[in-house]
Amino acid sequence: MCDECEDHHPDHSLAAPNRRKVLLAGASLVAAPLLAGAATGAQAEQAQSSVGNGPFPARAYSAASATSPLVPMQIERRAIGPNDVFLDVLYCGICHSDIHHVRSDWGPDRYPCVPGHEIIGRVQAVGSAVTKFKVGDIGGVGCMVDSCRTCENCLADREQNCLMGATLTYNSPDPISGGHTFGGYSDKIVVPEHFVIRIPPGADLAATAPLLCAGITTFSPMQHWKLAGGQRVGVVGLGGLGHMAVKLAVARKADVTVFTTSPGKIADARRLGAREAVLWSDTEAMKRLANRFDLVIATVPRAFPMQQFVDVLKLDATLVNLGALEDLQSVSGRSLVFGRKSVAGSVIGGIAETQEVIDYCAARNIKADIELIQPEEINRAYDRVVNKDVRYRFVIDMASMKPVAGSRG
Amino acid sequence: MCDECEDHHPDHSLAAPNRRKVLLAGASLVAAPLLAGAATGAQAEQAQSSVGNGPFPARAYSAASATSPLVPMQIERRAIGPNDVFLDVLYCGICHSDIHHVRSDWGPDRYPCVPGHEIIGRVQAVGSAVTKFKVGDIGGVGCMVDSCRTCENCLADREQNCLMGATLTYNSPDPISGGHTFGGYSDKIVVPEHFVIRIPPGADLAATAPLLCAGITTFSPMQHWKLAGGQRVGVVGLGGLGHMAVKLAVARKADVTVFTTSPGKIADARRLGAREAVLWSDTEAMKRLANRFDLVIATVPRAFPMQQFVDVLKLDATLVNLGALEDLQSVSGRSLVFGRKSVAGSVIGGIAETQEVIDYCAARNIKADIELIQPEEINRAYDRVVNKDVRYRFVIDMASMKPVAGSRG
Repeated sequence: MCDECEDHHPDHSLAAPNRRKVLLAGASLVAAPLLAGAATGAQAEQAQSSVGNGPFPARAYSAASATSPLVPMQIERRAIGPNDVFLDVLYCGICHSDIHHVRSDWGPDRYPCVPGHEIIGRVQAVGSAVTKFKVGDIGGVGCMVDSCRTCENCLADREQNCLMGATLTYNSPDPISGGHTFGGYSDKIVVPEHFVIRIPPGADLAATAPLLCAGITTFSPMQHWKLAGGQRVGVVGLGGLGHMAVKLAVARKADVTVFTTSPGKIADARRLGAREAVLWSDTEAMKRLANRFDLVIATVPRAFPMQQFVDVLKLDATLVNLGALEDLQSVSGRSLVFGRKSVAGSVIGGIAETQEVIDYCAARNIKADIELIQPEEINRAYDRVVNKDVRYRFVIDMASMKPVAGSRG
Repeated sequence: MCDECEDHHPDHSLAAPNRRKVLLAGASLVAAPLLAGAATGAQAEQAQSSVGNGPFPARAYSAASATSPLVPMQIERRAIGPNDVFLDVLYCGICHSDIHHVRSDWGPDRYPCVPGHEIIGRVQAVGSAVTKFKVGDIGGVGCMVDSCRTCENCLADREQNCLMGATLTYNSPDPISGGHTFGGYSDKIVVPEHFVIRIPPGADLAATAPLLCAGITTFSPMQHWKLAGGQRVGVVGLGGLGHMAVKLAVARKADVTVFTTSPGKIADARRLGAREAVLWSDTEAMKRLANRFDLVIATVPRAFPMQQFVDVLKLDATLVNLGALEDLQSVSGRSLVFGRKSVAGSVIGGIAETQEVIDYCAARNIKADIELIQPEEINRAYDRVVNKDVRYRFVIDMASMKPVAGSRG
């Protein structure tokens, strides 16, 4: 819960812009009143102010190396271009991939690393050409902040597959500012409007943040593989992604089974709407479930032995891997051949599909189960995520971030 | 070429039943004239004779162990049931899986092993309830000779996925006769009519035999994954299956690239209709072809490093493995995830689809490129297959098989 403005409230998005200062100077910008007061959305929209093109100071939590804890630092956000949206970050989810990046689990990474790609913020200013947002609106930013927008994949709403390489929200080469991008563990961010998702009025903002990665990542394969009501779907791993997969599959009236390694999550799985939950180690249950599933969605964030989940697939069915980026472990060619089964992968979704899952969830009151934490608690939260001790997503209350010592941010 | 009756001739199927004796006695059987002469199909259809229910001697080539050569032996064929078709085997293709079975490559196998599941034969007798064939017709037998025919998969024309387990043409437990089944390296075979494929008049019989495994195995995934004209398909491995994959894909007007390890097959690939052929080791070409293919069909009959062929897939595209039954080698989770790519498998096809590929090929004059050999040449042919020295399928002229020494077969 945000002490400053009670942002973690269902009708938060209707609230007025908060009182933090936005230090802007220069042209081509429609900005919110700089020194707060309770401007209405309409007032804010009409506000015009000259702001500069220089970069802006922002506060962030950052890791200096693969073995460093995250600590406060001051970063810069670029000047707001004509198509940019300037957001005051309110909430940012902690995704397991944040930890992978911070700790260089996927190979040497970029430092300082400011993670965070499940961002909810309030629009504080917009560039002169922006039409999608007005000051005071609530916007969301997921895993991407830019792409070429001209290649065949971008034109097909597959920005995540941009042939020039999408600019990821953090630790991606930043073609505009140089260096690499900084994510949402920060109090401010500047993002092209195309990559900012509209958050519908009435959304529970903190619990909506995880939809921007965990939500779209599990929604997209259900769309692509056409998961339908009555079909049987397995969800492997009940963490941030897994619990969203259960909720989204239940919303489609699919028949959900959770495969977990945590006995303590069995009851939770049922509470979330799964028909049953099965321990990976329960060989009897796994045998009973052989050849039963139309789709299996694996959310495990590292390599794991996949064959037992290929075994539960029906003929022609697909195991979709969302999190294991290493080489596949133990997948039997024989099993794929004789069942015409597939092992596939999927990654987030395009911007249009991300907007779709946000709207879909808002219409059905689907949100993540979260633990809201203060920025100072990030390092402890990381350890708890690695130990599978979170129900089911940590979300950082970024609006409560304290000034960086010695900075003006 | 068959010295006895010139069977390897396009209009062979119109030829009269050959002159071998069929020793039959008992009831419920419509049999061909026993002592030959040139009976017409119509004459044969009208022929009736009382034949016994006892098993019949047949000649076969069999391996006694994983390290034994194939040698002649006498086997028994069961009595002809009401729904059975009795075939004089004319031709039988040599599939690489025959070698895998004979040599116990896939684990300890059953011996004596009489391989062969690309069988063309002439109907010598039919059971009393048979309606699909008459004496003198040409029938084909592929990889299966029975299934439960009542389970959901059988009812869906997926006999290869029979929930009770299909009875494979050889080395499968034989629920009717006991022991295990004997395949087409034999001069006679008894098969339920449902599992005998009609071979259209005019077909080149020897060159049609390989369609019953290599043909259906490559046709089925093109149907399932909807390979369309203009799409780009890769064929990995240019052997028995691979060369059929090229012909069948070219017939669909797909744009075919062959990936081979044999420099000597580059020109052949083009002759078969491929746009180009690329050596696996040609890293420059492989790089050039990255992200280009709508479908890749891998015909390699053993584990191989798959990632280079995942790399050539477009977004959302599928690599279908037809021959590697071992655990998948070197498939990057990252690559599947970021391209929403799939690795799948496929095995032969159901009986209806097998009939479909036979009719499809007959209508388009598609046949295998074969080397016709005598039964005595089987062992040498096996070595040549393993050494990739066949263009592109050995077919055994079973009608030329000599009597087994000391037997009456």
